[in-house]
Amino acid sequence: MEELRPAGLNRPGTTEWAQGLSRPLVYRYFPGGRQQLYEAALRSAAEQLILCFGEPPAGPPTERVTRVLDRYLAFVDEHDTGFSALLRGGCVVETSRTSAIVDEVRRAAAEQILLHLGSGAAAGPRLRMMVRTWIAAVEAASLIWLDEGKQPAAAELRDWLVDQLMVLLAATAATDPETASAVAALLPLESAGGPAGRLAQRLVPVLGEAAHLLPEDG
Amino acid sequence: MEELRPAGLNRPGTTEWAQGLSRPLVYRYFPGGRQQLYEAALRSAAEQLILCFGEPPAGPPTERVTRVLDRYLAFVDEHDTGFSALLRGGCVVETSRTSAIVDEVRRAAAEQILLHLGSGAAAGPRLRMMVRTWIAAVEAASLIWLDEGKQPAAAELRDWLVDQLMVLLAATAATDPETASAVAALLPLESAGGPAGRLAQRLVPVLGEAAHLLPEDG
Repeated sequence: MEELRPAGLNRPGTTEWAQGLSRPLVYRYFPGGRQQLYEAALRSAAEQLILCFGEPPAGPPTERVTRVLDRYLAFVDEHDTGFSALLRGGCVVETSRTSAIVDEVRRAAAEQILLHLGSGAAAGPRLRMMVRTWIAAVEAASLIWLDEGKQPAAAELRDWLVDQLMVLLAATAATDPETASAVAALLPLESAGGPAGRLAQRLVPVLGEAAHLLPEDG
Repeated sequence: MEELRPAGLNRPGTTEWAQGLSRPLVYRYFPGGRQQLYEAALRSAAEQLILCFGEPPAGPPTERVTRVLDRYLAFVDEHDTGFSALLRGGCVVETSRTSAIVDEVRRAAAEQILLHLGSGAAAGPRLRMMVRTWIAAVEAASLIWLDEGKQPAAAELRDWLVDQLMVLLAATAATDPETASAVAALLPLESAGGPAGRLAQRLVPVLGEAAHLLPEDG
């Protein structure tokens, strides 16, 4: 099966690439034909993508998420055409099975992010919903990034997505006690020189303009 | 055509519902058969959804977005099954034409939100990307909301989504000068008693825990 792997997700349907293979060769390995071959390639790509999310639970959480996003964006960059076709539903060979594989990747990503936020499987509904909406935002941003010729630079996009996660945590902590506890436990792990410090320092002037929104004696 | 409208988006494919119609009746109005009927129903639902986004450009922008989200969530609530099937790609009758209709709704939503942020068609790439990622987050949150039996209450979900937009604006303003100008122009329109004030007041304790991220003389 190794010989069939390299194309992975990288063609909208693998079928174009598979056209270079003789029909007997395809059916020898995949009795279900090209659809089965595509699903096998997608599953292989999904496993590779899930590996991107793995990160030791050590060091400032924002730096861990930064490394996860670096690997994720490298994957998107490498598999651009297939990634875009798959997530846009433009795949001729999209089925409920391929959708299930994509959902499995999203679930794995959410579990990993929740782990780094200190919650994991025990996370409550609001924190979980927040992480899943952030993952949807990351996906949407990746698709726009591919559409716009991979602008801005991957590192800039990555920093902005980490910033998004931090402010979503803050906004959710404002009304959800569980998220507030998670944020209180995460903040001491962050430093002025890391992503959280960089964002906090840049937010000071923005928040300064919002002073009229606070009670005068607040 | 009116007689065919009420089901709108509300069945995964309209076809189940259309099974109650005689074949001659379907073909009389839709020579393209049930696929054409489904697309017509989807187009009608899309037009109805696009109308939800219309909002006079007056009053605090966060209150305008609140009203838009109220109408949007009422639409999601009403068309739950069809909305979910359509966006999950679980529609048997999904085609490039139905995907184009969904994308048209997303584009219309982005243009309306950009208008209320004071930018509209002239918005630069980062602000536009931010609004589109927020819309993706809103969509994802709606699907999760449907999955979870419409919990939390629509008004709570709506307030949280407005909070998300505000903090995304702040985080984006931190690195994008255009967004920073937009935020500076928006903030004077907001009041301590409105959604922006409510969020600002609730963020004070969260941000207090981040004091170590700022330079001591900052």
